[in-house]
Amino acid sequence: MSRHTRSPSRNAKDAEAGFEIQSDFQRFSQRDDVFRRSWWDARIRSAKSDLFYATYREPLSNWRSTDGFTQKDYALRNAAWQVSDLFTDLKLDADRREGFNDEFTLTRGVADERIDLGTPAETAAEIKRVAKGFGADLVGITDYDERWMYVNKFSDLSLTERPQEIPAEMTNVIVTAQSMDYDLIRTVPSALSGAATGAGYSRDAMVVLSVAQYIQNLGYQAVASMNDTSLAIPFAIRAGLGEYGRHGLLITKEFGPRVRLGKIYTDLPLAHDKPIQFGVKKFCDACQKCSTACPVQAIPNGPPSTERYNQSNIKGVRKWSIDGEKCFGYWTVQNTDCSICIRVCPYNKDFSKWWLRVGRWLAGTPLRRLMLWLDGWLGYGERIDPRRWWSAQG
Amino acid sequence: MSRHTRSPSRNAKDAEAGFEIQSDFQRFSQRDDVFRRSWWDARIRSAKSDLFYATYREPLSNWRSTDGFTQKDYALRNAAWQVSDLFTDLKLDADRREGFNDEFTLTRGVADERIDLGTPAETAAEIKRVAKGFGADLVGITDYDERWMYVNKFSDLSLTERPQEIPAEMTNVIVTAQSMDYDLIRTVPSALSGAATGAGYSRDAMVVLSVAQYIQNLGYQAVASMNDTSLAIPFAIRAGLGEYGRHGLLITKEFGPRVRLGKIYTDLPLAHDKPIQFGVKKFCDACQKCSTACPVQAIPNGPPSTERYNQSNIKGVRKWSIDGEKCFGYWTVQNTDCSICIRVCPYNKDFSKWWLRVGRWLAGTPLRRLMLWLDGWLGYGERIDPRRWWSAQG
Repeated sequence: MSRHTRSPSRNAKDAEAGFEIQSDFQRFSQRDDVFRRSWWDARIRSAKSDLFYATYREPLSNWRSTDGFTQKDYALRNAAWQVSDLFTDLKLDADRREGFNDEFTLTRGVADERIDLGTPAETAAEIKRVAKGFGADLVGITDYDERWMYVNKFSDLSLTERPQEIPAEMTNVIVTAQSMDYDLIRTVPSALSGAATGAGYSRDAMVVLSVAQYIQNLGYQAVASMNDTSLAIPFAIRAGLGEYGRHGLLITKEFGPRVRLGKIYTDLPLAHDKPIQFGVKKFCDACQKCSTACPVQAIPNGPPSTERYNQSNIKGVRKWSIDGEKCFGYWTVQNTDCSICIRVCPYNKDFSKWWLRVGRWLAGTPLRRLMLWLDGWLGYGERIDPRRWWSAQG
Repeated sequence: MSRHTRSPSRNAKDAEAGFEIQSDFQRFSQRDDVFRRSWWDARIRSAKSDLFYATYREPLSNWRSTDGFTQKDYALRNAAWQVSDLFTDLKLDADRREGFNDEFTLTRGVADERIDLGTPAETAAEIKRVAKGFGADLVGITDYDERWMYVNKFSDLSLTERPQEIPAEMTNVIVTAQSMDYDLIRTVPSALSGAATGAGYSRDAMVVLSVAQYIQNLGYQAVASMNDTSLAIPFAIRAGLGEYGRHGLLITKEFGPRVRLGKIYTDLPLAHDKPIQFGVKKFCDACQKCSTACPVQAIPNGPPSTERYNQSNIKGVRKWSIDGEKCFGYWTVQNTDCSICIRVCPYNKDFSKWWLRVGRWLAGTPLRRLMLWLDGWLGYGERIDPRRWWSAQG
């Protein structure tokens, strides 16, 4: 179990990715994830957290008359989660919640014969095209790095830890990103906006399952995974999908922080991508929009640090860390997932518009403070009324 | 069970849709569908038909070296089917193949409280927007018509007939269409092109499940269905999705015959669409491209008739009917689904290009024969080399 130590240039690679790993680094265990803790840790679990989950999973009977939290808003949110939930619920009988606690089970096995797809660079190019054909919005490739794998998996059902099961031959990781709907995210906080989250996961599940099965059909091993098995963001950064933001989220060039991530571990020989920089680090240094907007002050307003709010932060990495307890606490009070930090992020834009691409370029230059001021002055990041979302669709 | 007889204007509606129903009309039983017969009917079932199905469902071990039929082509095809297969296989233990023999089981029930979405026209507009948000390419709405429902369902597993289970309150049918990839279809015949079929179904399953669950979350009943429960094309024509073509397929204005259909039966009050005409009937009268191109002469070259090739044709409808036995026989010989009739159809175009929309308009005028000649002269409908598809992606 020392796959990552094979590489002689780990420090150089970390520097390239902007990772500041400390000597007291410890791998993270899924048990300490705040969502897992909301099942086993009495300090997190509450009647409100139970209700939070139940309203995703039962015929609708709980909603508020508040705009954005009506039956219709929840109806759309839960319908958007439907496909993701179906996959997640497939193996409950075997104490598996696939996509969140456990990797996905592929229905067909590995082909006996291995196909030669050319050089690792040619193979990588082809896999990316196939993944995009299956609906992936972004695809990057990096090498397996055990440091970001959960020490153990955790079951929300039996409340037990379990060892990882990724075979040792899996030396490559394909990272996918699915964009979330810009207009829905503008209505945050709302149950309605959760439809963007649900649709992101539903599409993500489809993509990682299809790509992994394609690789197995070529005669190689592949493990399809969503929020399970590992911390996705370090892999995504290494795979060139974006930079790390103050809100603890990946910021992609194409969709800002408005993405959901998937991972496919594989032994298919693949060329790797390099981390990208387009000015996010310096921009987040200057910008505190997410930190100011967070209703429970879960996002730091200072420089990156090694401080841990609680056990839900990884140990020994200098970075912006968020307080998962406060964050999830707000979700349970709202009775839906919150994405205020995504909504207000100046990188949360519809970059199909050329002037917003100019703004993104500006944010990566010394004029970043001007861009930040402009962003606020133009009213970007403000909440739109969920009723406006419903009627604007007409 | 006489829902359809409530309407006083059935003959008028049939005329509007171009249906020519004869006095000896008999509803179709799913048992007589040629795919179902390939399980129970010794005249259809063979080692080749068993192998045809097996190569979709087992780790790859059977392919040819012929271009378009290599391991890589099958690998992509089967991966594209992966999500659809997963849904189809969910309830095998209960003798159900959902999406093909049986309607889908929704994971969450109907909400206790019914929401008021406004007038049926307003509700229809909103449902269409939601369906498109979930990824539907086309959506239309019509009323339930028992004549197109299978008399009985059929199980490919236990080889038994079973009664329909659509509740009597379901007076409306939402019809969805998913487009299939234009460039993949150009490689027909090939296993590679089956990836377009598989992806069409995988996306279709996602859409009908999400829309049906949304409706149940609003407090109304909804049944999500793909190739199961009924003949989809009559509902699609009534719902305004397109016209009927010589090859026995729906021809949509947006994607020609390059679509897969889904259906959602519901008691949600919805305004209905009207059938559309854009000249397909007269064009198919003049065009025999599909009929000429079919390698087994399964498509008629004459006018619509009431002739039945065999029990796999519905009885008592004057229309272009295809010989399903010959058609499926060719599929088993090729060991993949054939879409030559789709590939060569002059309506199979990428209509995002304005000059092709001009051609479509021309096809609906007395200049249709000029358009038909142009279509051939310009080389549309010719097969492209599957290797070219793989390399053109670079």
